[in-house]
Amino acid sequence: MSPAPLDLHGIFPPLTTPFAADGSVDGRGLAANVEKYNGTGLAGYVVVGSTGESVYLREEEKLAVWETVRDAADAEKILIAGTGCEATADTIELTRRAAALGYHAALVRTPAYFRPQMSEAALERHFRSVADASPIPVLIYSVPQFTGLDVSASLVARLAEHPNISGLKESSGDVRLIGDILRLVPPDFQVLVGSASTLYPSLCLGAHGAVLAVACALPELCVALYESYCRGEHARARALQQQLLEPTAAVTSRYGIAGLKFALELRGYVGGPPRAPLLPLDDAARDELSRLFRGL
Amino acid sequence: MSPAPLDLHGIFPPLTTPFAADGSVDGRGLAANVEKYNGTGLAGYVVVGSTGESVYLREEEKLAVWETVRDAADAEKILIAGTGCEATADTIELTRRAAALGYHAALVRTPAYFRPQMSEAALERHFRSVADASPIPVLIYSVPQFTGLDVSASLVARLAEHPNISGLKESSGDVRLIGDILRLVPPDFQVLVGSASTLYPSLCLGAHGAVLAVACALPELCVALYESYCRGEHARARALQQQLLEPTAAVTSRYGIAGLKFALELRGYVGGPPRAPLLPLDDAARDELSRLFRGL
Amino acid sequence: MSPAPLDLHGIFPPLTTPFAADGSVDGRGLAANVEKYNGTGLAGYVVVGSTGESVYLREEEKLAVWETVRDAADAEKILIAGTGCEATADTIELTRRAAALGYHAALVRTPAYFRPQMSEAALERHFRSVADASPIPVLIYSVPQFTGLDVSASLVARLAEHPNISGLKESSGDVRLIGDILRLVPPDFQVLVGSASTLYPSLCLGAHGAVLAVACALPELCVALYESYCRGEHARARALQQQLLEPTAAVTSRYGIAGLKFALELRGYVGGPPRAPLLPLDDAARDELSRLFRGL
Amino acid sequence: MSPAPLDLHGIFPPLTTPFAADGSVDGRGLAANVEKYNGTGLAGYVVVGSTGESVYLREEEKLAVWETVRDAADAEKILIAGTGCEATADTIELTRRAAALGYHAALVRTPAYFRPQMSEAALERHFRSVADASPIPVLIYSVPQFTGLDVSASLVARLAEHPNISGLKESSGDVRLIGDILRLVPPDFQVLVGSASTLYPSLCLGAHGAVLAVACALPELCVALYESYCRGEHARARALQQQLLEPTAAVTSRYGIAGLKFALELRGYVGGPPRAPLLPLDDAARDELSRLFRGL
Repeated sequence: MSPAPLDLHGIFPPLTTPFAADGSVDGRGLAANVEKYNGTGLAGYVVVGSTGESVYLREEEKLAVWETVRDAADAEKILIAGTGCEATADTIELTRRAAALGYHAALVRTPAYFRPQMSEAALERHFRSVADASPIPVLIYSVPQFTGLDVSASLVARLAEHPNISGLKESSGDVRLIGDILRLVPPDFQVLVGSASTLYPSLCLGAHGAVLAVACALPELCVALYESYCRGEHARARALQQQLLEPTAAVTSRYGIAGLKFALELRGYVGGPPRAPLLPLDDAARDELSRLFRGL
Repeated sequence: MSPAPLDLHGIFPPLTTPFAADGSVDGRGLAANVEKYNGTGLAGYVVVGSTGESVYLREEEKLAVWETVRDAADAEKILIAGTGCEATADTIELTRRAAALGYHAALVRTPAYFRPQMSEAALERHFRSVADASPIPVLIYSVPQFTGLDVSASLVARLAEHPNISGLKESSGDVRLIGDILRLVPPDFQVLVGSASTLYPSLCLGAHGAVLAVACALPELCVALYESYCRGEHARARALQQQLLEPTAAVTSRYGIAGLKFALELRGYVGGPPRAPLLPLDDAARDELSRLFRGL
Repeated sequence: MSPAPLDLHGIFPPLTTPFAADGSVDGRGLAANVEKYNGTGLAGYVVVGSTGESVYLREEEKLAVWETVRDAADAEKILIAGTGCEATADTIELTRRAAALGYHAALVRTPAYFRPQMSEAALERHFRSVADASPIPVLIYSVPQFTGLDVSASLVARLAEHPNISGLKESSGDVRLIGDILRLVPPDFQVLVGSASTLYPSLCLGAHGAVLAVACALPELCVALYESYCRGEHARARALQQQLLEPTAAVTSRYGIAGLKFALELRGYVGGPPRAPLLPLDDAARDELSRLFRGL
Repeated sequence: MSPAPLDLHGIFPPLTTPFAADGSVDGRGLAANVEKYNGTGLAGYVVVGSTGESVYLREEEKLAVWETVRDAADAEKILIAGTGCEATADTIELTRRAAALGYHAALVRTPAYFRPQMSEAALERHFRSVADASPIPVLIYSVPQFTGLDVSASLVARLAEHPNISGLKESSGDVRLIGDILRLVPPDFQVLVGSASTLYPSLCLGAHGAVLAVACALPELCVALYESYCRGEHARARALQQQLLEPTAAVTSRYGIAGLKFALELRGYVGGPPRAPLLPLDDAARDELSRLFRGL
């Protein structure tokens, strides 16, 4: 097991999963979205992550989604599979499946149901077990707004010592934590942020890239911000960051995946409704999103 | 669809799921535990709930566990299946399976992964959808220590109007909330508490019964408290409540399911380790649990 | 220093502080309220507590309020002074003043501004310092809804060993914590709850009495609940508890002191507006409170 | 009332208050510290803020501290008085005193004791009342780690419309919030951050300056970071930011004011113990701080 060194600089959208009228996965719509994304500067795709409604997909659906995206993606796009489950064994199993399908890395979120018992020791064992068994590099995924669990900078630093743990996606939006992590990990440990509203300041601190829900709807804007930063155009990066704030809030904390999927439609992608228990959007939300996303 | 009226007075243990050395479900051990429980005053069993490590069980394992317990349980024991999943559709599917296996009621926990979007409206639609589709009565299951989501008294009251939502298990330990709920629901709405450390005060307020992890290890003590209360023996009930405090804390917040399973072994039941990522107990925990559970 | 043994069984209102039109303390109105309360079964008065807007009173005003209440109170009423400040030295100074004015006990809230540094060790030293220096018994006052700080059962148990710390007022409404405290402290340690919505279950667990904001407006109802409990009339106590739930919520979490003061007016006491930054009530709140408090 | 336009670019230390052996304010030590600070690039001083232990100072002590610092400060240093109290009236009174002593601006923290009632409307009225009455510009001070209260970007934007509210100090460390505020306020509204661990990313987003506890001990380092940023030396600013992380954590969240005061001693300033209930440092903390602050 000698995984290729990962380079995750750039912007990754966590792909949404479109559903057909009968509730099944709309593979055609998904492929159509990926084909459009192929023409942008996105670095690759996160497939079956939180935003892909992974918790609402059955195992066979996850496999089908991975295949669809793999087949539709341009060769140079990096493919990251969201493989985290509550059980360590299930996570390992899914990670192997994703690797077998050609995915380049596995994004493994913190198991969290038994929160009071998910000590640093428990999380450390979980990630090490998965990384030991995984044929592909593992990325830690911390998303406290969903899991209620933080991952400390020191835990990240310990896990970064594992040869098959190559990076993390940190979605709390806590820029101080990003700074702390970057201080403690080796320079080739890939630090991705999962919060578009703090993308620019995180890049300033040294983050390598980002996995951004809003990048599903506004890939060009996110890539432009990233590239401005890379070229040292701080004033432009700051201005683009300000432009991103409202649209980001709308498709994450305020309206969630239903909002994001509607924003996709406004931008010419296949959106559709989320699975229940997520509610469809009401008219007021649609109006607000139209105002925010049409004009851009 | 006219479900039989449920009467959930009494104490229900949320059965643990024993695992064999190879990690598979130990059906024989599970049946042995149920046979021992049959001889106690327990009112019935909750099967594949949080304490049964439902989030670590695959669907086929859940079905097997339900069959095993159904076959081992005495005829007068009430059988409650934990059928809650993140997706509404998956929850409905599992609930139908449990009903087909002869379960009397389904315990449906709040979906919670996309917490910021799990508004009261989203939760209400979820529970109504499940109840509409379920052949058996549905019980709402609120467990904020795991889900990070509260269920308000007013939401419970609204859901109690549905003819197929017959009760709830409220595990927050918030006695004020129990009082509020009891004030708002009809008298035949079955209010079960899921917190042994507030069992006696909850009964004083009118709770019908309880689903208690500690009852897996100490069924007689829990039943004795319940029966003392029923006979109006308040001083004895209060004393038994005090006796329960330390053992309860040890097998819930402090050591979780690993602790509970070890306590089962100390009391002559089949325990065993939990599934990863839950950690096995260390020696200090074993010593403390031995001190707390051997003497009783 | 050998303080008389305190017996705090019963119901204590934390007196509101009426203000005149010019914003000064309305001593006459305060005395009038106390004279009315003298005719009820209240066990005594808490003076200059949170509900007395102690954080908005200057030192000379606190002294004047203590004098006024002392002069107006019937001889058999127990007088408890709220003397807690952020600084230990200021708390000691105020406690001595209250003692000199004839107060029987001092209620000392947890200092909390520098929350991250208010460790159990810091709180323990604070309460021991105050108790060492106080001529009158000290009561610990924990009110997490305002301070953001919990006081653990084990800290209470350690402090209960101090000969001049005679009890606590616990206002979190956490009945489990009340049970834990009662399990750990000696039987003569006076446990008062500060939450009317959990009064009856707390009494069931062995609490000695209560300090209840709602008792300023509804002293008879609170005393009736307490006395029902003492006579073993559980059904009546439970019914009175249910009656208290809505009025209590309205004058605490929902509308706070402004709501309580308006409820006082509805019940024939002197109310008046709170000091800024507390807002006066709007009309909708007044209507709701009228509905809740007029009918009783 | 036409206050001079404030320009708060740069770094401000919130001065600590040294205490003599008898517990009284050590005015001489305070003056000595200010004289040393005069020789640095600090933009001015915040006097009697949280870090100055304002909650432990009596009113006459606050006035004396303000006088001492005013007399010791170089003429070009901007003087900001911490005047926030729980009561609006007390805050106005203190603000007038500070203005009379020659202070250039008043830093007014959110009142917070009655948190559930401190709605946006209550906070807005408080700040407007103070600003209406204040002879000098008012700065909003939000410090959720102590108050438990957030101030939203939209509330800041509304308050920024008041002609006498000239800026804010935002100490949460939430960089996303800083970005949101900067998007909504006019460019001359002075946005200061109160978190050294997010200084550089906040400057990138457009913050004007900072009030930093760690700047009491390490003024040169903080000023160097600020000036690097101003000169467009991003790599150097990022490196200095990394250098600041550990020392900052040590004198804020980890050891608080006791830690900061010891760090002052290590750097040749007058430190001394904090007032009780803050605990003095233990030896392990002193060792850690020595390691962190001696080497710099």
